[in-house]
Amino acid sequence: MSTTDSPTPYDPNAFERPSVTVDVVAFTARERKLHVLLIKRGVWPFEGHWALPGGFVQMSEGLDAAAHRELTEETGVAGAEFLEQLYTFGNVNRDPRTRVISVAYYALLPEPSISPRAGTDAAEAQWWPADALPPLAFDHAEIVKTALSRLRAKLGYTSVAYALLAPEFTLTELQTVYEIILGRELDKRNFRKKMLSTELLEGLEKQRRGGAHRPAQLFSFTKREPVFLD
Amino acid sequence: MSTTDSPTPYDPNAFERPSVTVDVVAFTARERKLHVLLIKRGVWPFEGHWALPGGFVQMSEGLDAAAHRELTEETGVAGAEFLEQLYTFGNVNRDPRTRVISVAYYALLPEPSISPRAGTDAAEAQWWPADALPPLAFDHAEIVKTALSRLRAKLGYTSVAYALLAPEFTLTELQTVYEIILGRELDKRNFRKKMLSTELLEGLEKQRRGGAHRPAQLFSFTKREPVFLD
Repeated sequence: MSTTDSPTPYDPNAFERPSVTVDVVAFTARERKLHVLLIKRGVWPFEGHWALPGGFVQMSEGLDAAAHRELTEETGVAGAEFLEQLYTFGNVNRDPRTRVISVAYYALLPEPSISPRAGTDAAEAQWWPADALPPLAFDHAEIVKTALSRLRAKLGYTSVAYALLAPEFTLTELQTVYEIILGRELDKRNFRKKMLSTELLEGLEKQRRGGAHRPAQLFSFTKREPVFLD
Repeated sequence: MSTTDSPTPYDPNAFERPSVTVDVVAFTARERKLHVLLIKRGVWPFEGHWALPGGFVQMSEGLDAAAHRELTEETGVAGAEFLEQLYTFGNVNRDPRTRVISVAYYALLPEPSISPRAGTDAAEAQWWPADALPPLAFDHAEIVKTALSRLRAKLGYTSVAYALLAPEFTLTELQTVYEIILGRELDKRNFRKKMLSTELLEGLEKQRRGGAHRPAQLFSFTKREPVFLD
């Protein structure tokens, strides 16, 4: 008998069982603060409450695809370059509808050039400062906390900051992203020395001119994926 | 209207939706090799194939509890001190029964004093050397690979080795655990210096005597939880 021949048809609905959602914590750095993308729920439960974009996983889609789809449908944000699975939340009573297990993701986005646009189950979509979020539906405050902790840790041992920056940036802009996420100021000289020693940055034959400052050299990451730092 | 009053009863079975399992990669270090605990499946699908212990999440249990329960039911291994969520695997066709999303865990166990004992859906249960596993059912080879990668990384930046050792151990035994998992020999002097500098180890007023070797001091970890190394 092959491994795929069932002796009797398998009926998953014969058992009471959990449902599965994805939820996405999308971060960006803007106005010198880390921000999280939230939607105002347009449907029961927690109607009118702010929440993470997310929804039920469809039968024909993988989990990553479901996370991308829900983020795009509910906020208009499409093609997130960095979107990674965070943790799966499965407390028994986390959702009043039924037993719902949520596979949480986090996404990193460069400073947004366009405003989010609410869709499907979302009545509004808006960036909120991570240190001043409104009360969140379900266990979404815990999910945000977990994502923030992961982001801070990952910033320390990988090059993941690339995902929060435009393809070309100054060292000052890179340092600002680090300071925003870590929540503290960094020494400019040490930061530059450490960053340039990693060989993850490529100096470009370009400068950014602007304001009263001297023109600053532009850099790019040699790889747009999280690389481990030594 | 309160957040828990449903305008219409919510019927999860009105939608076709995935089922949820947990699978557990249990590691131990024995006979100078890393080992993984496998069960031989006693039921369709993949009947007679080796697989990770695991099974469907029940409505009334959290995910961690489900992982502990399945590990115990199928292998007799109870009370794993370290059991942590690894990653959630959700490829659309990973299970011939229906769409099944599996929340994978990994557990670390001290060298086992008793043999595993198969139960429920498992016909056999046995420790296998991690570098010589049999062909595995479903996507379990990928789950083991992910767990091994996580374990190696975590060994480098935390004190998680405690979970693979008895409460009291010699520095040689600690070094052996590191060498087994990293798959390479470590310099004894550097290893001891680094470990003793972390302040995670407590020297005990006890020695282990045995064989032709000099008596060796016993140590314990000051905390039996993964602490970040500097």
